[in-house]
Amino acid sequence: MDAASEALVTRLLAGERRALAKAITLAESTRADHRAQADALLQAVLPQTGKALRLGISGVPGVGKSTFVEALGLWLIARGHRVAVLAVDPSSSVTGGSILGDKTRMEGLSQRIEAYIRPSPSSGSLGGVAERTREAMLLCEAAGFDVVIVETVGVGQSETTVAGMTDLFCLLQLPNAGDDLQAIKKGVIELADLIVINKTDIDPNAAALAQGQIRSALTMLRPQNAAWTPPVLTLSALRQEGVASFWETVERYRDTMQASGDFEVKRRAQAVAWMWALIESGLKARFDAHPAVRAALGTLSEAVERGDTTPGAAAGELLRRAAQ
Amino acid sequence: MDAASEALVTRLLAGERRALAKAITLAESTRADHRAQADALLQAVLPQTGKALRLGISGVPGVGKSTFVEALGLWLIARGHRVAVLAVDPSSSVTGGSILGDKTRMEGLSQRIEAYIRPSPSSGSLGGVAERTREAMLLCEAAGFDVVIVETVGVGQSETTVAGMTDLFCLLQLPNAGDDLQAIKKGVIELADLIVINKTDIDPNAAALAQGQIRSALTMLRPQNAAWTPPVLTLSALRQEGVASFWETVERYRDTMQASGDFEVKRRAQAVAWMWALIESGLKARFDAHPAVRAALGTLSEAVERGDTTPGAAAGELLRRAAQ
Repeated sequence: MDAASEALVTRLLAGERRALAKAITLAESTRADHRAQADALLQAVLPQTGKALRLGISGVPGVGKSTFVEALGLWLIARGHRVAVLAVDPSSSVTGGSILGDKTRMEGLSQRIEAYIRPSPSSGSLGGVAERTREAMLLCEAAGFDVVIVETVGVGQSETTVAGMTDLFCLLQLPNAGDDLQAIKKGVIELADLIVINKTDIDPNAAALAQGQIRSALTMLRPQNAAWTPPVLTLSALRQEGVASFWETVERYRDTMQASGDFEVKRRAQAVAWMWALIESGLKARFDAHPAVRAALGTLSEAVERGDTTPGAAAGELLRRAAQ
Repeated sequence: MDAASEALVTRLLAGERRALAKAITLAESTRADHRAQADALLQAVLPQTGKALRLGISGVPGVGKSTFVEALGLWLIARGHRVAVLAVDPSSSVTGGSILGDKTRMEGLSQRIEAYIRPSPSSGSLGGVAERTREAMLLCEAAGFDVVIVETVGVGQSETTVAGMTDLFCLLQLPNAGDDLQAIKKGVIELADLIVINKTDIDPNAAALAQGQIRSALTMLRPQNAAWTPPVLTLSALRQEGVASFWETVERYRDTMQASGDFEVKRRAQAVAWMWALIESGLKARFDAHPAVRAALGTLSEAVERGDTTPGAAAGELLRRAAQ
């Protein structure tokens, strides 16, 4: 490691915001030399990571995620925590926008020295976005942030991805019934360790009704973990009501999971699953880039489409070429 | 191709049952020489495949799948069709049993020369079972069966797999409400082109209620295809009531999809997706078998679990070794 990188490590571990921003930018870069620097940096700070509580937050657009994260973040800072907010949004490269892109959505939090807000990397595929976000999470932990919030929108597999990188996955719901069905349908409720019905200020009765419906749906779905049944809370992020009770539940979850040993088991399994995801995408990328594969892929793929050859024969031929 | 293989092709294309059974056994074998024979055989008969209607059937245990397939099969045979029945059951190698393993469950159908019933291959992984079943499907088509029914139980991803190899995926439901929620939760209803509530003989009112509930749930879920909204039928397989109406709906589906061009588009996409699934499992198998990978995988995997190295660094090292 060169002197500049060593200085960056020192500044990062001292919690310097500019060093953190630079380290994340290196990790997000597609340049090979930046990638190598980022790998060395991550390896150097690795012993200082893993101490934060990792909180995943999801919910449909309009459910009030930003308002909730702002309310929670300010509440945590007032109690001595340092809060990093990251995002996983694979659609940001398509739409040009990004969740968290507009910091004015978290105006209070973004002005605090105890908070660090970083928008979703816009590198395209969910796998790429997820890898960059995981690395950013480790860097934030090395910089001393003790709560890392990873926000996502309900696009495709992004919820599964965020649940796979956090200790506790929280689903935000609107106080109405149709929303449940969507969440049940997509299997998101099964991922949730905690469900929060936001915007109870609009209609407290509807919120209580939704709470009952989700609780009854949960009894029909198998719980993820024997030691923990996902609670269903109600709150109003706008009025900052229910935040203390939310955090109390998060801490109870952490304590329960740590006592049973499941907390550490989950983190270890997440790290190994991440390694395998990187291996699979690496193998696929290498296959796609292989000259002998590229030379034949179009023709063979068309032959399979037309029914001139079997998928098995075409796959076999391409695999032989990839091994050359 | 040797003389014995050529004779097998001739007998298979003539519709000889023993030739079909032998061809499927070759395709299911793990021996490399059998595998090569099966590949040559499939390539030779490929022009004679693709003419059957491929029908996927799923539903929880006890929903009456066997009774339904028996009733439908006999009804089709009486109208001049030849019916092959295959199964995808990745759990069969674990439980020792297999759906369709007991032919007495389809006593009438199994005695008919116009029917061919083959239990699920018990090769372990879903990918392996699916590949063998797809090949068996092509062989049945080459032998002149014009309706191929692929049955599965609701285990893990098996429904997605069967929906991915058939023209029409039909979900059988019991006439009660709790069943819906499970199907919605698992996203199976989204896969279904047709939903059938069986056992209406037990309680016609409950069946009508379930029919209404599923229809209303369907309006909240996006349809898969713009040209087709999945109908919800009721029938009693035991009393053989509703079978004609079921088949009429299947034919209407096929005609609609063929008219819009979606039928062919779906088949082509299925074939290409199958090729890619084979490529990915082939790349993974080659990686797992690489001596330099095997020598380091245990140590690196444990280092990732302990947090001594990052998943990225470990994956990078293993990928470098795999390229040696």
